[in-house]
Amino acid sequence: MTEIVSAAMLVIGDEILSGRTKDKNIGHLADIMTAIGIDLKEVRIVPDEEDEIVAAVNALRARYTYVFTTGGIGPTHDDITADSIAKAFGVPCEYDAKAYAMLEESYARRDLEFTEARKRMARMPRGAEHIDNPISVAPGFRIGNVHVMAGVPSIFQAMLDNVVPTLKTGTRMLSAMVPCLFGEGLIGGPLAEIQKAHPDTIIGSYPKYGDGKFWTELVVRARTQEALDAGRAAVEAMVAGFAEAG
Amino acid sequence: MTEIVSAAMLVIGDEILSGRTKDKNIGHLADIMTAIGIDLKEVRIVPDEEDEIVAAVNALRARYTYVFTTGGIGPTHDDITADSIAKAFGVPCEYDAKAYAMLEESYARRDLEFTEARKRMARMPRGAEHIDNPISVAPGFRIGNVHVMAGVPSIFQAMLDNVVPTLKTGTRMLSAMVPCLFGEGLIGGPLAEIQKAHPDTIIGSYPKYGDGKFWTELVVRARTQEALDAGRAAVEAMVAGFAEAG
Repeated sequence: MTEIVSAAMLVIGDEILSGRTKDKNIGHLADIMTAIGIDLKEVRIVPDEEDEIVAAVNALRARYTYVFTTGGIGPTHDDITADSIAKAFGVPCEYDAKAYAMLEESYARRDLEFTEARKRMARMPRGAEHIDNPISVAPGFRIGNVHVMAGVPSIFQAMLDNVVPTLKTGTRMLSAMVPCLFGEGLIGGPLAEIQKAHPDTIIGSYPKYGDGKFWTELVVRARTQEALDAGRAAVEAMVAGFAEAG
Repeated sequence: MTEIVSAAMLVIGDEILSGRTKDKNIGHLADIMTAIGIDLKEVRIVPDEEDEIVAAVNALRARYTYVFTTGGIGPTHDDITADSIAKAFGVPCEYDAKAYAMLEESYARRDLEFTEARKRMARMPRGAEHIDNPISVAPGFRIGNVHVMAGVPSIFQAMLDNVVPTLKTGTRMLSAMVPCLFGEGLIGGPLAEIQKAHPDTIIGSYPKYGDGKFWTELVVRARTQEALDAGRAAVEAMVAGFAEAG
């Protein structure tokens, strides 16, 4: 039996939508999810606006096994993710005693003032559990099926490393790539027939273009080795047929 | 008077969600939109599934001035964007005579067979207008406020260059960056006060981390030079105050 575990990602931040910062987290999350057998089914990028965050979180958490958010959990006025997630869950956003103590101790040790702004990083929805931050102390958090993490890539990645072992994973999607020197226009018809004959595979065709030439990478994906092997053999035979004909 | 022109982007493709391909189009569209005064307000990435594409297109085209899609307009069975957009608009997806003739001529000139797969690229929703493709002939299209373009970055960029002159643009968002050697935890409180005192600006704080150190880039955005200058002066004065105190 194959169990499907699904996920969505919510990227929060004006700076991504303005182009000022180029997102590096979507591709990383996609790679990790694929590696552990969770299907990333949707990504949304929204601005630092409470209504937008609330609407997106509620739409995504209802549909997918897991939601992962990045961005907006720092100490400044535009960091409104914790409040927005609390609102989405209908719970208060308040100082978390453990996070507060941890941050207070960390700043005291470094002889830095525990400013109001820094205290903001201890706020989270009531009932949330910490996601440890080995880089800069201030934790992310999980509430329900929503995991709230930092936007700075190194911190996001470290937090995600802490989250992964807690996730239920599904049957990993296996994949095989068949290189193809022919363009999609030539192979498209036969490839569609192969897809029809192998309904337990997902066959993707990825056009490549460079130096004035087109080629194609054909990727067969399946959740069992048998289905994968059968689909791959059919695609390889088709490509070989074109090569002989050519 | 400042007119706000808004946009959303819909990235269509299993390969982005699996991590196999890393998106390069979101950042490019974001840069171009910011440069011409259109606010990119939302991005969604969805798989090659008709229902998902239809739902996302209909949600986005109702909310924003423009929608830009990338991906899924090639000749293979997994290229279902044209059909999905037609379904979203409730019109038939059919061979476009001009696109058909153009592709037929192009393949004839190159002595290549005009296969069924290649003919697929001439299909578009009834009533759509072409978006020229100077690289590989097969056009994108516009229907209503939705612009449908290729996913291959070089082709997407060339198509977008053809779309930009047709767009209504708004009052460009001006921005100024104030570098800050202090972390967000120190400046967060005063910065929030400045934001309150300058409601006609959007002040963003972008934490940077590297080599064990934190610093911050403070970005003031506004739609008039006056508002921008006033906001920037206040932020600069705050940073200078911390520098003297430090």
